[in-house]
Amino acid sequence: MGTFHYPNGKKVTSIVKKQSSSSIKKQISYSNRGMSLEDDINQSNEYYLLTNQAIIHKKPTPVQIVNVEYPKRSAAVIREAYFKLASTTDYNGVYKGRYIDFEAKETKNKTSFPLKNFHEHQLIHMQHILDHGGISFVILRFSSTDESFLFDSSHLISFWKEQSLGRKSIPKGEIEEKGHSITIGYQPRLNYLHVVDSVYF
Amino acid sequence: MGTFHYPNGKKVTSIVKKQSSSSIKKQISYSNRGMSLEDDINQSNEYYLLTNQAIIHKKPTPVQIVNVEYPKRSAAVIREAYFKLASTTDYNGVYKGRYIDFEAKETKNKTSFPLKNFHEHQLIHMQHILDHGGISFVILRFSSTDESFLFDSSHLISFWKEQSLGRKSIPKGEIEEKGHSITIGYQPRLNYLHVVDSVYF
Repeated sequence: MGTFHYPNGKKVTSIVKKQSSSSIKKQISYSNRGMSLEDDINQSNEYYLLTNQAIIHKKPTPVQIVNVEYPKRSAAVIREAYFKLASTTDYNGVYKGRYIDFEAKETKNKTSFPLKNFHEHQLIHMQHILDHGGISFVILRFSSTDESFLFDSSHLISFWKEQSLGRKSIPKGEIEEKGHSITIGYQPRLNYLHVVDSVYF
Repeated sequence: MGTFHYPNGKKVTSIVKKQSSSSIKKQISYSNRGMSLEDDINQSNEYYLLTNQAIIHKKPTPVQIVNVEYPKRSAAVIREAYFKLASTTDYNGVYKGRYIDFEAKETKNKTSFPLKNFHEHQLIHMQHILDHGGISFVILRFSSTDESFLFDSSHLISFWKEQSLGRKSIPKGEIEEKGHSITIGYQPRLNYLHVVDSVYF
């Protein structure tokens, strides 16, 4: 990371070097109790960014904007908008020069992961990513036991196809066997890149 | 691309193979008159997706949602939301196994490209992408002459830093010299991957 000279003439050496490790600690650390999988991943991505390990961001929620007000002397206000179905996955970025792309979902189920957590466009997107040499997976969490797994998209796609045979979910045993457990830690909360290292590099 | 079996039992071979080339033509072709750079890029990305060349998507507009109504028997309506500054660039994806990331901007200026089209977070993001081995560039269009250039982020960052010396824009001559002209075509409208091939592969 080089240095940036801002218009005010000050020289700074990027947000990475500006942060001391203690300030990183302060920003990242907190108990996981009650935190959602999304919170854990966002915190982990922030940690990876601050420690310069990977550049991975969550995509904004897709919204169809219908009506916007422009009040005088204040910010534009969106007055009518609707949630749109995502055509891709929620997270993507670059890690060690490679394209990385994933979706994260949690279930309260104890013995299997329902396929209804995903939709067709996302599965097609995952297949595309695999076809083009990207790293594509899902992070699946069983929230009752706080267990999280990295599960390659190729496996998810195989189970998805079995919906035509009546399959509605992936048995937990299959996820334990074909997936990879992600340990919950202090920081990052969910060190999924450690698993990515062992599976894809 | 493999085959998908949907829950209804039908077998389809992905959106790519489902489309005949004539239907692709129909979807993509139209005159460029009055089309924005964003429209051109979205159409080109759609073409690249349909022809299975690259998987590149525009990120949704980031919005801070404040208030949502849940009417009975109809979709949730966002009643108060605000536009947020993007912390990254607008487009990213995977091409030939590599991470690709860019921003696109146009100006009505004829002799230079104003730096105020970008903001600091985006420049820091671009530097991060370069540091991690991704492909990072901007597409700059001079709308008065309909000329578009691919300009590597490293050059943009160099000019950006000169703001501390009073620089407010990049002279067009520098963009012509350090950048790469992107030809406007029939389909895709803006074949920037052709330039990416010659610059990065």
